[in-house]
Formats: sequence, structure tokens, C-alpha cells
Amino acid sequence: MTFSAGSLLNKIRKEKPLVHHITNYVTVADCAAATRNVGALPVMAQAEEEVREMVRAAGALVLNIGTLSPSLVRAMLEAGREAKKKGIPVILDPVGAGATSLRTESACLLIKEVSPDIIKGNAAEIAILAGLEGEIKGVESIGGADPRFAAAKLAQKTNAVVVTTGVEDIVADGRRSAVIKNGHPSMSLVVGTGCTAASLLAAFAAVEKNYFEAAAAAMTTFAVAGELAAEKAASAGGPLAYKTLLLDQLYLLKEEELDRRARVEFFNERE
Amino acid sequence: MTFSAGSLLNKIRKEKPLVHHITNYVTVADCAAATRNVGALPVMAQAEEEVREMVRAAGALVLNIGTLSPSLVRAMLEAGREAKKKGIPVILDPVGAGATSLRTESACLLIKEVSPDIIKGNAAEIAILAGLEGEIKGVESIGGADPRFAAAKLAQKTNAVVVTTGVEDIVADGRRSAVIKNGHPSMSLVVGTGCTAASLLAAFAAVEKNYFEAAAAAMTTFAVAGELAAEKAASAGGPLAYKTLLLDQLYLLKEEELDRRARVEFFNERE
Amino acid sequence: MTFSAGSLLNKIRKEKPLVHHITNYVTVADCAAATRNVGALPVMAQAEEEVREMVRAAGALVLNIGTLSPSLVRAMLEAGREAKKKGIPVILDPVGAGATSLRTESACLLIKEVSPDIIKGNAAEIAILAGLEGEIKGVESIGGADPRFAAAKLAQKTNAVVVTTGVEDIVADGRRSAVIKNGHPSMSLVVGTGCTAASLLAAFAAVEKNYFEAAAAAMTTFAVAGELAAEKAASAGGPLAYKTLLLDQLYLLKEEELDRRARVEFFNERE
Repeated sequence: MTFSAGSLLNKIRKEKPLVHHITNYVTVADCAAATRNVGALPVMAQAEEEVREMVRAAGALVLNIGTLSPSLVRAMLEAGREAKKKGIPVILDPVGAGATSLRTESACLLIKEVSPDIIKGNAAEIAILAGLEGEIKGVESIGGADPRFAAAKLAQKTNAVVVTTGVEDIVADGRRSAVIKNGHPSMSLVVGTGCTAASLLAAFAAVEKNYFEAAAAAMTTFAVAGELAAEKAASAGGPLAYKTLLLDQLYLLKEEELDRRARVEFFNERE
Repeated sequence: MTFSAGSLLNKIRKEKPLVHHITNYVTVADCAAATRNVGALPVMAQAEEEVREMVRAAGALVLNIGTLSPSLVRAMLEAGREAKKKGIPVILDPVGAGATSLRTESACLLIKEVSPDIIKGNAAEIAILAGLEGEIKGVESIGGADPRFAAAKLAQKTNAVVVTTGVEDIVADGRRSAVIKNGHPSMSLVVGTGCTAASLLAAFAAVEKNYFEAAAAAMTTFAVAGELAAEKAASAGGPLAYKTLLLDQLYLLKEEELDRRARVEFFNERE
Repeated sequence: MTFSAGSLLNKIRKEKPLVHHITNYVTVADCAAATRNVGALPVMAQAEEEVREMVRAAGALVLNIGTLSPSLVRAMLEAGREAKKKGIPVILDPVGAGATSLRTESACLLIKEVSPDIIKGNAAEIAILAGLEGEIKGVESIGGADPRFAAAKLAQKTNAVVVTTGVEDIVADGRRSAVIKNGHPSMSLVVGTGCTAASLLAAFAAVEKNYFEAAAAAMTTFAVAGELAAEKAASAGGPLAYKTLLLDQLYLLKEEELDRRARVEFFNERE
């Protein structure tokens, strides 16, 4: 595999795919900004009456249960099925799966009914959905099973590409895993980096049908942006100042620099 | 017409009109900040049970269908009718009209039932509502009929002042048009500038009953703020850093500087 | 009373309590950032189907009626009762009480049914809930009864600790009052400082069962952060740039500096 996040970033910037989000009201502005900054077009639409029509114009669909309700889940089911029918990638962000039964059950229902192409969560969310041990406090992972093992397991169970965010992000399709060695500790201080990662996954999957590669490229792009933002950050800055730098790096990032900085290790899980 | 955006900005800062928003959950924080920074007071209230009462305390009403639902549209109808009864200006932002039939129909319904005083959209939204050719991708204009022609046509059709945002903003009342020559390309990189423009239109219309003049002043103010923000922006900054500068310029803007920088051309459409 | 905001801040940073918010969609991102920056973990969940389960994992609960609806109030009642049963502090932010009867009645209902441990509002909201004169424009206080008197009166009426925000913040439990002399005028220019104050109150109350002391410490922390942010702010900055500095100070704040700067006066109200 010749892995080049930069060439996919270039494709996003040229094709400007529409990324349809059904997401929470906490981090939605960051998702919109990240989508736009990476070169794609964000749209948010959640009314059951219009989601199918919006999906038909979209290049990818993000389903995020961060502030879910039963009617929102119904809209996600409608939109998700339409996306699969149309053949565009569906990215599921099961925020807080394991924290309440509504969240766990909604995530499982969406996996069963929609078969998302990419599932992205923190270590606890992914472990819990894989049927392994995981501990979650609200929407924050406290720990859980070995992340690479859990990601591979959930990928095998669901046929989705699974992305686990953490100090090192993991991308797994059940046969292979990619471990992204880029990133910066400041990213973990920012509320909403998980949600924005899902927007990036959608933008990359909209331009690259190999979703394993698309996902690895998206997470590498975000992690390299995190490094560059940290280099720019004033020593006296805090998490919000850093967030602005981080999201703006998605816009400023040069494709060659991204490829030069990328540090990704690939593993064959079934050797 | 002696056009002075600065004198209207001064009036907003003195009178601090209350701007009631029924708007989307993506850019709502920017709308609140822009309203406050320009000197007015924002309030967001969308429950059908309270919108009429809130309208009665307000100086202007913004209806934005960016993340609409049938119940939100019902609240908009209630609030809009009450605003017309009270005689305060109603600003309609038909976000994504043309992208789904729910959006197009909701925009048309609000125009028919409420008769908004100002309709603001991008080139595609305005062209589509005027019954002309327009192409929209999610909520992003891809192109459409000649913007000045489309704005004048929609103004004639609806008796509203029509504002079309773009490289040059256009304000039309069907007889006259104003073309705002100020602005900066960075504004188009920021998610939500359209929505915040509607907040400014509302603040200006709350203090000036000549809505054509109020609208031209609002758009000039925003465009001049965009220029000043670009002059302040670090060369290494991105869209989010620019957004902070842009919205803050609304607070920092001196009324004399605004008038000195304003470059607005007026046209008589029926000569 | 040996008052030390710094030692409580230290406790938050060590224990990382989960703060469950049922709040508005305007300032929710700021609430999340403030909660995280002060060292606690934010979670937002408002579906009636899950709020009780989320409360059971939480260390404090914030109820904010800024963009209320009847179903949201039902979720608040469910969550509030569960929080009282579990014994975790409930913080009520009656945004816009007095502006519409839905808001006034919802605030009164939540006070009656939930018995919040802390009620925080601006001078008008607190005066109105205390049964005194208060004038509100949207969600902005225009004035009202003497703030210290009104806070003490509402505290006596409700058995809650009452916090009134303003140039000087007031904390009252009916017998004692604390007047926080710290702060900076720029804080009043920022949309959402009231809502974020409620998040801080929740984080402090989660680690200190003496809610009067917890509330005084929370408001002192925010006010000192406001001073430090003003010292860092560029002379040419505006309210949004200041907001980033303000929220980031919650992360950067040193516990010793907080205690060194704190200027709080305590009064016995029944001497």
C-alpha cells in the first residue's frame, strides 16, 4: 500500500464533497469548521422529513449520538439507510456508548440497521461495542481492553473500519491495523476533538473508497495538524487558544508537509 | 439619500435593541456574539409556548431555517405573525432553500404567511426563491442567475428588501439596488458569516424603519469589519482566528472609520 | 470559615467530577469548555429516556432554561429529582425568568419540585424569583431590587444558596452573604459568562458539600480568571478574543495565585 494522506487531502480540496452531519449541539460548530477547513462542505440537517433528500446530495454521512433523542435516532436510521442505498460512506460516532442504555442500544441499533462503513470512538466506547471490558465516565474513556485488540474485534464483528482515538489513534479493518504515531497531548484537552475527527473521516471517505486507507489518512492529517498547532501555540496559551490553532491547521496544512511528517505503522492482525 | 452606516451603528449602540432569534444550532453562538458585539442584545427562544411573548419585547426578529423541523417552522410562523402585528422587522434567512423540498417549502410558507421585511440568502437561495435558475450544494451556493437581477426580482415578488451575500453583497428593494464593494475574501472561508449577517440586518432594521437603508448599512458594516479584520490577521492565521477578529471588529469599529471606508454603489433598477 | 478557592480548585483537578448539563444550545460549547478547563468532565444529555441514568454517574447537575421547551423541562424534572435522591448538588440557572411566563413558571416549577441546591441568575432574574421588583430585556438584567437583599430573600424562601452575577457577584444562603470583589468589566461583554458560571458552580459543589463555600469559591475563581485574562488581553482585542483568554485562564490558573488574589467580603445578614 502506498499511503499518502496528502494526496487524499488534495482530492478533498479539489472535489469539495458535501458532508451531511446528524450530530450533537455541543460540538457541531467545530464539526462544521473542521469540515470546511479541510476543504469539504458541511451541512447539518436532522428533520426526518428531509434527511433522505439531503443524503442524496451528499458525499458522506456522519451519525453522532452525543445528544441523542429517539426522534434523532429515527432520522439517523432514515439517513443511514439512504446513504447505504446510494453507496456513500456512513461514519458512526457512538458518543457515550456504555454510559447509558439509550446510548448503547442506539449505537447497536445503528450498527445493525445501517452497517456503518466507519465506526469511531474512544477506547471505552469501542471496547464496549466489541463486547469487551470498558469503563466510561459520561463521554470520557476511563480505560478498557487493549485498544488494538478491541478495534480489530469490533471491525471483525461489524465489517466496519474501526477507529479508536487516543494517545495513538488506531485504525482497524479486522485484518490490518494502522497505528498513528503523530499527535500532541494538547489535543486531549480540547472538548470535541473526537467529533471533529468524525467529520474528517467523512471528508476523506468521500474521496477514497478504500475506507481503511481513508481513515488512516484522516487521522494522520488531524494528528499532524495537532503537532503543527502545538509548535505555533504560545507558551502561555490554554486549550481554547490551541483549538483555534488546531482547526486552522487543517486549512493551512501543506500536502507535502503532511506526507513528510506522517508516522504510521501498519500491522497484519492475522499473521 | 444620505447614507451613513456609522450613524445607524451609533443608534444601535445607544438603543441596544433586543434581537429575537429562532435559528439553527450550528452558528447560533456566532449570531449571539455578533448581535452583542454590534451593540444590540440577543435572545434565542423557540418554544411555541413563549415566542409571541418574547417577540413583544423585541426590536427585531430573525427566522433562520438552517436546522429546521416542522415544530420549529410552526414557532417561526407564530413569532413572525406576532412581529408583523407589532410592527417590528422580520428577517428571513432561507438557509438551504433549493437543497431539499422541506427547506424550499418552509421558506415559501414563511414568505407567504409572514411577509418578512428582509430576506437574506446566498446567490443560489435568492435565485431559487425568485423562480430563477440556482444551484446549491447543501447550504453552499454553486451559482445561479445574475445576482442583482435575481435580488430585484425577489424583492418585487415579495415586497421585501432582498440581500444577496457574495463577493459583493447586494441589497435590493425592487426599485433600487445597492452594491457593497467592501469586504475581504477571508470572509467566505468562515462558516456562519451568512447567519451572522442576518443578526446584523436585524439590529440595524430595529433602529431604522427604512429597511433598504438599514440593510445596506448592516452589510457595509460587516464588510468593513471584514477588511479591518484582514488587516489585523497574522499572516499565518486561518479561518477560525480570522472569525474571532471579524466578530470582534463589530465591537471595535469606530463609526467615523466605517463611514470613511464605506464603498457602496446605488442603482436605480427601473430607469 | 477558612476560605480557600484554591484548595477546592485543587480538589476538582484531582477528582475530575462529572458535571451533567441540561442546558441551552447557544452557550453549551462554552459550558463544556469551562467545565473541562477547570478540571472536571462535562456531559450533556437531555433525552427523558436517559437523564436519570446519566445523573447516577454524575457529581453535579446543571439545569439551564436558556432555550427551554416543555419536553426539556420534563427532562429537567426527571434529572433533578434523581439528583436529589442521589444527593448530588443541583444548580438551577433560570435564564430569562421574568421575560416570558413560560420561563418564570418553569423556573418556579423546578424550584418547587426539585429544590435546587444553588440558584444562579442575574440581578433581575433573582429579584423576580424572590418576588421583588426586577426588569429584564430578553435575558439581560436592566435592574431590580438591591441585589444583596434579593439574594438573601430568595435564599430564605427556597433554602438554596443563591448567586447573583454582576459587577460584584453575590453569594447568599439567607444567613450569610459573600461579595466577590474580583472580576473585570470585559466579562460583561462576553455572551455566556452566566451559563459558564453555572458550570463552575457545579464543579465546585461536586467536591464541597458546603455549597455556600463552594459557590463563593467558584465565583471567585471565575472572577480572578477574568482579571488575569484582562492582563493578558491585547489592547486591540475584542470580546471574543477575551473570551478565549478567560476560559483558558480556568485551565492555567495556579491555586496559590487564586488564593492570593481573592478579595471576598463576608456579611452576616441577620445581625
